[in-house]
Amino acid sequence: MKNLIAILMVFLSMTVFAQVEKIEPPFWWAGMQHSEVQLMLYGKDIAQYEVAFSNTIQITDVVKTENPNYLFVTINTKNVATGTYELQFLKDKKIVGKQSYDLKTRRDNSAARKGFDSSDLIYLLMPDRFANGNSDNDSTDDTIEEVNRAELSGRHGGDIQGIINHLDYLDELGVTALWSTPLLEDNEPILSYHTYAQSDYYKIDPRYGSNDDYKRLASEMHERDMKLIMDYVTNHWGSKHWMIQDLPTKDWIHYWDSGEDGFQRSSYRMTTQFDSNASEADKEACMNGWFDTTMPDINQSNPLVLNYLIQNAIWWVEFADLDGFRVDTYSYNDKEGIAKWTKAIMDEYPNFNIAGEVWMHNQAQMAYWQKDSKIGAIDNYNSHLPTVMDFTLHDALIVMFSEHEQGWDKGMLRAYENFANDFLYPDINNILVFAGNHDTNRINDIYKADLNTYKMIMTMVATVRGIPQVYYGDELGTGGNKDLKGDGDIRHDFPGGWKGDQINAFTAEGRTPGQTAFFEFSKKIFNWRKSNSAIHIGKTMQFVPENNVFVYFRYTDDERVMVVINNNPETQTLKLNRFKEMITSHKSGRDIISEQQISLENTLLVAGKTAMIIEF
Amino acid sequence: MKNLIAILMVFLSMTVFAQVEKIEPPFWWAGMQHSEVQLMLYGKDIAQYEVAFSNTIQITDVVKTENPNYLFVTINTKNVATGTYELQFLKDKKIVGKQSYDLKTRRDNSAARKGFDSSDLIYLLMPDRFANGNSDNDSTDDTIEEVNRAELSGRHGGDIQGIINHLDYLDELGVTALWSTPLLEDNEPILSYHTYAQSDYYKIDPRYGSNDDYKRLASEMHERDMKLIMDYVTNHWGSKHWMIQDLPTKDWIHYWDSGEDGFQRSSYRMTTQFDSNASEADKEACMNGWFDTTMPDINQSNPLVLNYLIQNAIWWVEFADLDGFRVDTYSYNDKEGIAKWTKAIMDEYPNFNIAGEVWMHNQAQMAYWQKDSKIGAIDNYNSHLPTVMDFTLHDALIVMFSEHEQGWDKGMLRAYENFANDFLYPDINNILVFAGNHDTNRINDIYKADLNTYKMIMTMVATVRGIPQVYYGDELGTGGNKDLKGDGDIRHDFPGGWKGDQINAFTAEGRTPGQTAFFEFSKKIFNWRKSNSAIHIGKTMQFVPENNVFVYFRYTDDERVMVVINNNPETQTLKLNRFKEMITSHKSGRDIISEQQISLENTLLVAGKTAMIIEF
Repeated sequence: MKNLIAILMVFLSMTVFAQVEKIEPPFWWAGMQHSEVQLMLYGKDIAQYEVAFSNTIQITDVVKTENPNYLFVTINTKNVATGTYELQFLKDKKIVGKQSYDLKTRRDNSAARKGFDSSDLIYLLMPDRFANGNSDNDSTDDTIEEVNRAELSGRHGGDIQGIINHLDYLDELGVTALWSTPLLEDNEPILSYHTYAQSDYYKIDPRYGSNDDYKRLASEMHERDMKLIMDYVTNHWGSKHWMIQDLPTKDWIHYWDSGEDGFQRSSYRMTTQFDSNASEADKEACMNGWFDTTMPDINQSNPLVLNYLIQNAIWWVEFADLDGFRVDTYSYNDKEGIAKWTKAIMDEYPNFNIAGEVWMHNQAQMAYWQKDSKIGAIDNYNSHLPTVMDFTLHDALIVMFSEHEQGWDKGMLRAYENFANDFLYPDINNILVFAGNHDTNRINDIYKADLNTYKMIMTMVATVRGIPQVYYGDELGTGGNKDLKGDGDIRHDFPGGWKGDQINAFTAEGRTPGQTAFFEFSKKIFNWRKSNSAIHIGKTMQFVPENNVFVYFRYTDDERVMVVINNNPETQTLKLNRFKEMITSHKSGRDIISEQQISLENTLLVAGKTAMIIEF
Repeated sequence: MKNLIAILMVFLSMTVFAQVEKIEPPFWWAGMQHSEVQLMLYGKDIAQYEVAFSNTIQITDVVKTENPNYLFVTINTKNVATGTYELQFLKDKKIVGKQSYDLKTRRDNSAARKGFDSSDLIYLLMPDRFANGNSDNDSTDDTIEEVNRAELSGRHGGDIQGIINHLDYLDELGVTALWSTPLLEDNEPILSYHTYAQSDYYKIDPRYGSNDDYKRLASEMHERDMKLIMDYVTNHWGSKHWMIQDLPTKDWIHYWDSGEDGFQRSSYRMTTQFDSNASEADKEACMNGWFDTTMPDINQSNPLVLNYLIQNAIWWVEFADLDGFRVDTYSYNDKEGIAKWTKAIMDEYPNFNIAGEVWMHNQAQMAYWQKDSKIGAIDNYNSHLPTVMDFTLHDALIVMFSEHEQGWDKGMLRAYENFANDFLYPDINNILVFAGNHDTNRINDIYKADLNTYKMIMTMVATVRGIPQVYYGDELGTGGNKDLKGDGDIRHDFPGGWKGDQINAFTAEGRTPGQTAFFEFSKKIFNWRKSNSAIHIGKTMQFVPENNVFVYFRYTDDERVMVVINNNPETQTLKLNRFKEMITSHKSGRDIISEQQISLENTLLVAGKTAMIIEF
């Protein structure tokens, strides 16, 4: 009965003007930092009307574009209370229609929400490929591409319910945060499973579930003290996005009429973005070129576009109760635009976190993109981006464990030299550390699913400074090579995510012995990591690798961890006196991996291809 | 008669205290910025005396060390006139000896001397291997190693007179500055020809000539509007240095008693110098380790040592009338010490120039070492070093011309990506640009003396931002491979430098046809370079290489140069519209190399493996 009344009240309070097909954001909240909201009204010839609010809310600006189907109405919600407000449409000073608009109540402490950080361990998954929790939504009436699990590049039916069903698995593994690749609607006829060509920025793809399912995912995670990170795409939209089909302004996207095939592909030459010698032509070719044929490049230098993206992002944080963003192709955006976008979100949520994909192979170039970068400052640039990704460490991880002759710059020296550049980063704890993601060859393919190598790699990922990120399936030893077999090969279904799967790796009983070995190791160190503050926020001291053995320490005043990675196939004997700055007067420690007590006096024997995490 | 009187006057004015074996600096100048001079007095038990000046000059400090044979006496020469002053030695308050000390008159405008800069082209030679101008000094009584031209690692007899004899050759080639590897005495029994293990910091090696010969070299060069750069070694001295044989203080050098063979070799791991994660042990292993067995590592953190090095360097500038220093192994020195040394010299000569050898493979790491570096500032470091060397461009030059498939990062893209990092350098014109030096494989060995490749390389060296440096013999197509045949192979004698040489490449008639082709090309562009201010100080605009063709412009308001390097073996047709930002309304230009007028409308045909320098 109570519910019925509530539903009735909603109906009664809602007024709809038939001519308004869309109003975005569909609602807002009272008490937001971002209180000047630019409503986008869409409908046939909507621009012919004057608009006014019947009460309280002030309209501060109205923008009409060359497309009469759009009206951008800026409202001031500062000090306006929660409630339903009435937007009136006038013609010849007469009211011809009304549309209600809600200001909702924020969650307690919403603005103070704490984003993911270096105490977390992030699990990255692709929702179409993780688990199918609801087979009813594998295909839907309002989306084009239908499920076809036989096709590696097709939709396989994974969804939000599938993720929710397996949160206990992630919890057991030691995961504390989830980064799912995008979940918003992608209505491309093919390849929509990757969902980076999105067609509606206010709607979860129905094949993954509903907006409320997404909110439920966040809520289920929060109950387990886990965090949810949304994969946000500012750089490009899908070609099937309804606004792309009826552009508000010509310059909403970068046209590049000159291109062959009707579009101009990006040069991807990201160094043009800071190169003081770059030509304007080359800068534009990178920044304004399209990422792919189905991905029109969005023009963030247009204030209407930028506002739309800012409000949409804030809307999702507030609506779904998010703990962070991962931003796709961060360095391909309009530089100033993406900085404003990032700052606007961080101004709204000062303790939030955003990780940007800045895929470069040089630490100074990556450090350029981090908030308050001294290197960015040389170019008068501040992205305001809290977190960048350690692609140079990834460059090292994917080759160095095959290098058994260290020489001057090979083997473990690659990792060492990576960290030698740490001083370039303004915030060394906000670096995403990973051995692979949905765009790279799988780490267990590169090293042929060698468990010893995996242990050394995951030991590093879990213990170096920064925020570790694990790619779904790596914890089971899963392989995959995109160079040989295409993207689909690194995005196979998680075994056990579908009814009838022969292997169910979600359960201890279901895992093969091989999977069990990978899983148990991962679970052990990921869970151990949760409670060691030296690993979360400690300083690092590293020692020049000798004989392909890398030794580094993480330390605070209270906790100290010595990590030893022997990439040499032979047993190595370390003279511990070399590390006296860190061992100080300690006599022994405990190796988390072998669960043995280790003497820290005189020498340390380390078996070939072995990692140790010695806590003391 | 006048001369005789002058000589007599000198004799009369000179007083010598027999117990003083050495006084360094041996004289100073009136009116120096560095007016507080710390005299080092050396002699058997010299420390037993009190010292005083008879007139005018004030002694502000006297330091005695644990070695009684040294006395460090600081004098204040501020506002003291040119003249000969008398230093008195007292025992029990009685004068027991006198030693005259001269303050000389400086050259006019000595302090304002202008160092080498980007309008120069530097020629690097090894004096033992360039030309033997005086066969009387090939071996001398007071030096150990004797001449042996048959031995690749032996002394060959080249000398300062040999350089002076061939300044017209350098002038004809278009050289405007000379960097000779060190000329100070190196009295090692073997390998002294490289002269980096010096045994007397106030004395030209007698096998090269006298101090006055060196001064005459500078003077002869200045008459030709050429500049002289001294190769200075702050990091290490030779094991035969007289002070190393009788150390003033134990910590004059880094002992490292713990080392095997009585010394500890440097780890050469230069990243330890700025790595915020580095251990003290690793920092010291790089900074304090010896460069080689014959090269004790000098401790620049000892103020006595630092003062000695500062004064010695200033002494040489003032004495020989120098135009610059090149500093060996700059980044191996005590960081703070070398910064103070550099600053002291630049304070004395604000328009001087100093190039430091900072051999790294990462632009941010090299930029760290340049004066006022924003990257150095992250680490609270300022080296005060005006010029660094473009080792990353060298890394590119030695491989990219063999790469005919450009791909994502090969071929000409290597050069492009190098310049994309230019924004990291605080002073982009003060970067030494080179295709080889006395420590690298010869560029004409790497590319098998291919003239077309040489033309592309030298076109780049001569036209990109910075200060070009050419290694002796490169202008003749000379080869040499140190990896296969040792250092000697990249340090062969210049043909024609010795009487009886079969080939005399110093003259047009003497050169082989092959040498002539290399020489004439070099001469043409080096001489052209002299007068083009866009090349000297212009900005750069570069375009992303396509099909392995690299196009960049150098430009000022008045002058503009378009450089095209087609590293593709096939002829390439460039659509010039792509470069309209730089070509603007210009219709044509002149290619310096082909001496043809070139249309800048529509398209440009560039033959395979060809460079063009189009001035317009």
